[in-house]
Amino acid sequence: MELRKYIEKNKGRIIDNLKEILAIPSISTLPNHKDDIRKCAEWLEKYMKDIGLDNVQSFKTLGNPVVYGEKIVSENVPTVLVYGHYDVQPAEPISEWTNPPFEPTIKDNKIFSRGSADDKGQFMIHLAAAEYYLKNEKKIPINIKFFIEGEEEVGSSNLPKFITDHKDLLKADYALISDSHMLAENKPAIDYGLRGLAYFEIEVTGPKQDVHSGLYGGAIQNPINALALIISKLKDENGKILIPGIYDKVRKVGKEEREMIRQHLTEEDVKKETGVKQTYGEEKYHLAERVGARPSLDIHGIWGGFAGEGAKTIIPSKAGCKVSIRIVPDLKVKEVEEMFLSYIDNITPNGVEVKVKLLNGGEAYLLDFRKPIMQGASKVLKEVFGNEPVFLLSGGSIPITEVIKTNLGIDTVLMGFGLPDDNLHGPNEKMNLNQILKGIEASVKFIQEMTK
Amino acid sequence: MELRKYIEKNKGRIIDNLKEILAIPSISTLPNHKDDIRKCAEWLEKYMKDIGLDNVQSFKTLGNPVVYGEKIVSENVPTVLVYGHYDVQPAEPISEWTNPPFEPTIKDNKIFSRGSADDKGQFMIHLAAAEYYLKNEKKIPINIKFFIEGEEEVGSSNLPKFITDHKDLLKADYALISDSHMLAENKPAIDYGLRGLAYFEIEVTGPKQDVHSGLYGGAIQNPINALALIISKLKDENGKILIPGIYDKVRKVGKEEREMIRQHLTEEDVKKETGVKQTYGEEKYHLAERVGARPSLDIHGIWGGFAGEGAKTIIPSKAGCKVSIRIVPDLKVKEVEEMFLSYIDNITPNGVEVKVKLLNGGEAYLLDFRKPIMQGASKVLKEVFGNEPVFLLSGGSIPITEVIKTNLGIDTVLMGFGLPDDNLHGPNEKMNLNQILKGIEASVKFIQEMTK
Repeated sequence: MELRKYIEKNKGRIIDNLKEILAIPSISTLPNHKDDIRKCAEWLEKYMKDIGLDNVQSFKTLGNPVVYGEKIVSENVPTVLVYGHYDVQPAEPISEWTNPPFEPTIKDNKIFSRGSADDKGQFMIHLAAAEYYLKNEKKIPINIKFFIEGEEEVGSSNLPKFITDHKDLLKADYALISDSHMLAENKPAIDYGLRGLAYFEIEVTGPKQDVHSGLYGGAIQNPINALALIISKLKDENGKILIPGIYDKVRKVGKEEREMIRQHLTEEDVKKETGVKQTYGEEKYHLAERVGARPSLDIHGIWGGFAGEGAKTIIPSKAGCKVSIRIVPDLKVKEVEEMFLSYIDNITPNGVEVKVKLLNGGEAYLLDFRKPIMQGASKVLKEVFGNEPVFLLSGGSIPITEVIKTNLGIDTVLMGFGLPDDNLHGPNEKMNLNQILKGIEASVKFIQEMTK
Repeated sequence: MELRKYIEKNKGRIIDNLKEILAIPSISTLPNHKDDIRKCAEWLEKYMKDIGLDNVQSFKTLGNPVVYGEKIVSENVPTVLVYGHYDVQPAEPISEWTNPPFEPTIKDNKIFSRGSADDKGQFMIHLAAAEYYLKNEKKIPINIKFFIEGEEEVGSSNLPKFITDHKDLLKADYALISDSHMLAENKPAIDYGLRGLAYFEIEVTGPKQDVHSGLYGGAIQNPINALALIISKLKDENGKILIPGIYDKVRKVGKEEREMIRQHLTEEDVKKETGVKQTYGEEKYHLAERVGARPSLDIHGIWGGFAGEGAKTIIPSKAGCKVSIRIVPDLKVKEVEEMFLSYIDNITPNGVEVKVKLLNGGEAYLLDFRKPIMQGASKVLKEVFGNEPVFLLSGGSIPITEVIKTNLGIDTVLMGFGLPDDNLHGPNEKMNLNQILKGIEASVKFIQEMTK
């Protein structure tokens, strides 16, 4: 059956499969979802077997299992290694979802569910493409290997060991990852750069317990005020990070490259997608460069004292926050950790104690967009989506790309099918069904393209 | 029966009464405790009737009821107006209590419960003293009026109207309040000054919902970072408040007065009571002056973004905090509100919207400690506790003192029986039983003293 007809005929079943895996709340950041993680890995194993992959197995790690499946047809054709992650972010604040986050709901031809775009909906595209070859065509023109992990949202800390332990199994010519997004429905994109991430938790301790703010206000340091003071010294008001050394290895973006990337993230895009009235950041750099080629620092959560309704007059005993720094290529997580710890130590005000812990980290990635494999991917996306794709520097992090490069020696093509308004990590995450169906078409064609 | 014998014989019953009222979680700051507030007011009404007070009634207000009771014996003796509050602070963090906060538990001759010292345990002392006169002596030498309110912990916002509406009912020569503490078991104290309070909530809004910190980090302002920046500009690192005008009306403490107050709050006291390794604040001023005669500013709670276990990489949509300023006599809450709002407006960084709301406020109070009524109180406390009491500038707030002065034209004697380690507003609040029993003795004697 011809490809488009096949997709049209099978789309109901394809979306039903996706709904099944989306309904499993495989949240890796919350320890009480261990069982869902296991269920999700088992579901994937079964699915891989169903579509005709061989050697399907779930590999134990110190954390969550990695699910593997392959189809090896010949030593004389290229091998592609497809990576994805079946774990998802927490769904909080749940009250802001219009449907329950783990009851996938289709509305306006979009599927709403935590994980729909990040990343279940995206790796399922390539599994559907493999199924097309294996079930419809009865043959696949290249060797294909899938490895889908369950710890991406917690920093993939056990994946490097898995990769070094299974170099032969994972041997390939290219890696392929769909965990990013296009610019619009008719504007495909290929990421050629990703930022790394160093994620910390800070805890500030003052009095041994909450004390009366009248009796001690003015006499002892307040842990929340102290934490705010620390945070205020991490960036200046224009978004420049104040941690010494953090800009040392930042790559200078050339004029041509800057011209290319600046077309693809405008002031208007950011305002529309986030709802802010004005953008923010280092004035000397275009938004696309701030997000793609410069480090950034954000507080993800903060807590301390009394947050209920009404008024409670205490100096709290403790306060804390979660903070990450997105880092650029060449600056390693280890270096950032040292810089950060030493800087926090320097700026800690008197009268409180501060503990800082690296929760997870991942390195940045950069791949020359002029390489033939990137140009091949570009050709396929143009065929399917009607327009030449743009090459982007993404501000997000897919640390596995750097781990694959270092350990398997291969480049990764980052071909995302999401859209900018998919609400990744936020409430009402969604993926457009059309993106999924066109994604399958692109994946099938890219597999063909790789034979060249 | 002689006073001490009476107390010894009746103490079991007195403590049992206290346990009953402490067991009612009359938390005024949390709206879901309205029913407990009502129960507590009813309990008090019944108790006042039981001990023989007349004209007992519960006055409705726009908020929680005020419970009133009196014994009028003659026009030719002085009248004392006893104030107290039956509402309490929330008990969070409940996990840090060694017994449930509303299951009063006696250990080491101390009663542990929310409200034990602030303020149920203290106003119950004066009710027990009235009972001694009415039941044991069959007569009371002065007129006594009790009015016990239920909104002190939320700023007593309906009390000024209650007082102006009931000036004749409340007419008296002196007011008496026990809602403060002594310096140690043998070191009685009388507060002659109290700070006022202006309590605000700040809310900062950025993107319309939580967004991915990789995709937008560096391009939009983060509400938590913005809030931290705002907080960092409220005080400098030494605790000096940066809001223009906040020090304009601060009274200069004279040399003699400074010498008096500085003996009663030492570095070691503060370290011992709060567990901090070092104190903090304006270096030019002694700790006692920082707490008693200078304004202070504290964040009581902060929230925003993801505070669960693990790592979530978002730029949150909102962040907020609760903050109060303790103010000194002559500077009014209204003035502080204007200063604060205008200053916050000035320091709000680009890219976020900030809302500030005054949650409650109360004025400061000051009374010359050389007045005869103060010296009479001092004499009584010396008799009961064995040492001359000290006159203190408290850092806490009892805004009713200023309301009473303005509306009823009378001075308030602040004779507290708590101790510095009572953990007011914190977990494991307690009151020493011995303080309660000696407090009753002091109250009985002070009533006698007022006839002079």
